[in-house]
Amino acid sequence: MAQPATHVSPPLKDELDIVIPTIRNLDFLEMWRPFFQPYHLIIVQDGDPSKTIQVPDGFDYKLYNRNDVNRVLGPKANCISYKDSACRCFGFLVSKKKYIFTIDDDCFVAKDPSAKEINALAQHIQNLLTPSTPFFFNTLYDPFREGADFVRGYPFSLRGGVPTAISHGLWLNIPDYDAPTQLVKPLERNTRYVDAVLTIPKGTLFPMCGMNLAFNRELIGPAMYFGLMGDGQPIGRYDDMWAGWCAKVICDHLGLGVKTGLPYIWHSKASNPFVNLKKEYKGIYWQEDIIPFFQSLVLPKECTTVEKCYIELSKLVKEKLGPIDPYFHKLGDAMVTWIEAWEELNSPRQGSTAQPNGIEKK
Amino acid sequence: MAQPATHVSPPLKDELDIVIPTIRNLDFLEMWRPFFQPYHLIIVQDGDPSKTIQVPDGFDYKLYNRNDVNRVLGPKANCISYKDSACRCFGFLVSKKKYIFTIDDDCFVAKDPSAKEINALAQHIQNLLTPSTPFFFNTLYDPFREGADFVRGYPFSLRGGVPTAISHGLWLNIPDYDAPTQLVKPLERNTRYVDAVLTIPKGTLFPMCGMNLAFNRELIGPAMYFGLMGDGQPIGRYDDMWAGWCAKVICDHLGLGVKTGLPYIWHSKASNPFVNLKKEYKGIYWQEDIIPFFQSLVLPKECTTVEKCYIELSKLVKEKLGPIDPYFHKLGDAMVTWIEAWEELNSPRQGSTAQPNGIEKK
Repeated sequence: MAQPATHVSPPLKDELDIVIPTIRNLDFLEMWRPFFQPYHLIIVQDGDPSKTIQVPDGFDYKLYNRNDVNRVLGPKANCISYKDSACRCFGFLVSKKKYIFTIDDDCFVAKDPSAKEINALAQHIQNLLTPSTPFFFNTLYDPFREGADFVRGYPFSLRGGVPTAISHGLWLNIPDYDAPTQLVKPLERNTRYVDAVLTIPKGTLFPMCGMNLAFNRELIGPAMYFGLMGDGQPIGRYDDMWAGWCAKVICDHLGLGVKTGLPYIWHSKASNPFVNLKKEYKGIYWQEDIIPFFQSLVLPKECTTVEKCYIELSKLVKEKLGPIDPYFHKLGDAMVTWIEAWEELNSPRQGSTAQPNGIEKK
Repeated sequence: MAQPATHVSPPLKDELDIVIPTIRNLDFLEMWRPFFQPYHLIIVQDGDPSKTIQVPDGFDYKLYNRNDVNRVLGPKANCISYKDSACRCFGFLVSKKKYIFTIDDDCFVAKDPSAKEINALAQHIQNLLTPSTPFFFNTLYDPFREGADFVRGYPFSLRGGVPTAISHGLWLNIPDYDAPTQLVKPLERNTRYVDAVLTIPKGTLFPMCGMNLAFNRELIGPAMYFGLMGDGQPIGRYDDMWAGWCAKVICDHLGLGVKTGLPYIWHSKASNPFVNLKKEYKGIYWQEDIIPFFQSLVLPKECTTVEKCYIELSKLVKEKLGPIDPYFHKLGDAMVTWIEAWEELNSPRQGSTAQPNGIEKK
């Protein structure tokens, strides 16, 4: 392992929140108990706020439903999606911690090839606490893992790396396919355990999945907005993609790193491909314009913070993507609202407005 | 596996040469016999041409020593390195095949985690015959492998990919470290089998190692020049790196792909780190200027063939790297000589000048 630029000291008990968007009882937490119980959970209840969500005993959590979202954010609540897992970003907003791990409630503990249960959270923390290397590709993957290093020909001046902002984990069993691929290959399962973590190079976009994702909230939090999806919107299932594209161009601009690979979780159940197709179809063709937009995007050097980058991005979204559909004007406005909410809730003097009225347990 | 844009039909018996640079008897071929025997070998004997190299019975090969290099190339022979494994590119020059696999003579058959012997050549062929995806990162790695595909959010217009020009394989046991890392970590061994192949994104450079490497000679051959190294030169152990940097920027310019990852070979023996340090030390500091040069390099759009790109590159090397050391003027000239030799030996009307006078066996 190369000398890391940051000190590795898991498990960051008081510096990390686990954010879980859900519409159902959180029985899946039983399997995660040995790994999650030491941490604080932020549960973002989607859909009908009058419904009661059961959380297994012994977890330290706060649960926010739509009434809480409306109360905490007031008129700004319209930037938080409803009836879509994009609502998870409300949890990022109200967290006061340095790190976030977010996971879907149909994701279980996976096993490595030796049949050992994988502590996904510990691997994410390891990824986040070691540098990324976005400026040059290392053929033995993450040089900061045990038993690995930079290979011959890797420039020494680049070996310090940059701070890691995002750790993107993967999925065994049900792969994260789009609706067309689900329809064509209904039986395909991911059984390949790839024992690698790697930095996604600077200038390269990737499809960021929100199922099993961790990030440094101080470094990149304001860019982790999951957009306008679900109820009342023309599109779904592009929430995490949107966040990934925005976050990656901002990481590239600010010199921050994005890792992907380990850890794996066990994704238990494929969502309905017909429902998915309905949610995705506009995204599938809009994306053909959105990707070139992000690929050619240049942020001015005056944008020295994530917030400034994001506001600039919101303007460019309206200007360049607005002609595709009025949706992008609405999205651009929501991006600004999100940053206003972020600054309000995350300013040094902000009070206790983010406390939920709903169920709380400590 | 996504629908590949090219048809997969290993083993390409009549379309592939195996190129081996060596200074010793090729006993290592015994272990490779089941995999290599169907193919033609081009052996490039380095060092004293009066020495006899033993090749195990039953292989179809041609052996070229320095006398052959001089006879075939005449005054242009000065572009081929002497007393350095960079001489291997002579084998690329005289081959008449579409594909090249090159391997070092201290590399043996590795085993996968199920203890099965790895057919490195078959995996390289699979890599070369399926497209690369350099414009967007696929988080489940090579989408053209069995059991994999493009994930949600991968733009459909990019799923056809581009032709793969280079397949870069890895090494179990002795990792390919530079002399300083060898000195610091003499006992480190690579034991991690990463079951992945991936495309190195467009715009990203990588350290290409010549130990276990395959490429499509028709697509990228003229860029696979291993430079001036070894006897009479101020530098060594940067031959494959040089070829990798040049080939990658040309692949990016021409829309060709580079894959890395599987297959692994078993690298048996670390070279002497003190000797390596002597060879490398100028490279270690020159590299700090060479990498930014390649990273910022833009080839004009008139450069529509590898040869044109390479000639343009030779000019830029002299102009931009010449100020570092007179060596780069000599290297720039040698790059031009290499292309002249390539065109001479690979023109449709070229005769039998590439036949060796030395040992030949069919």
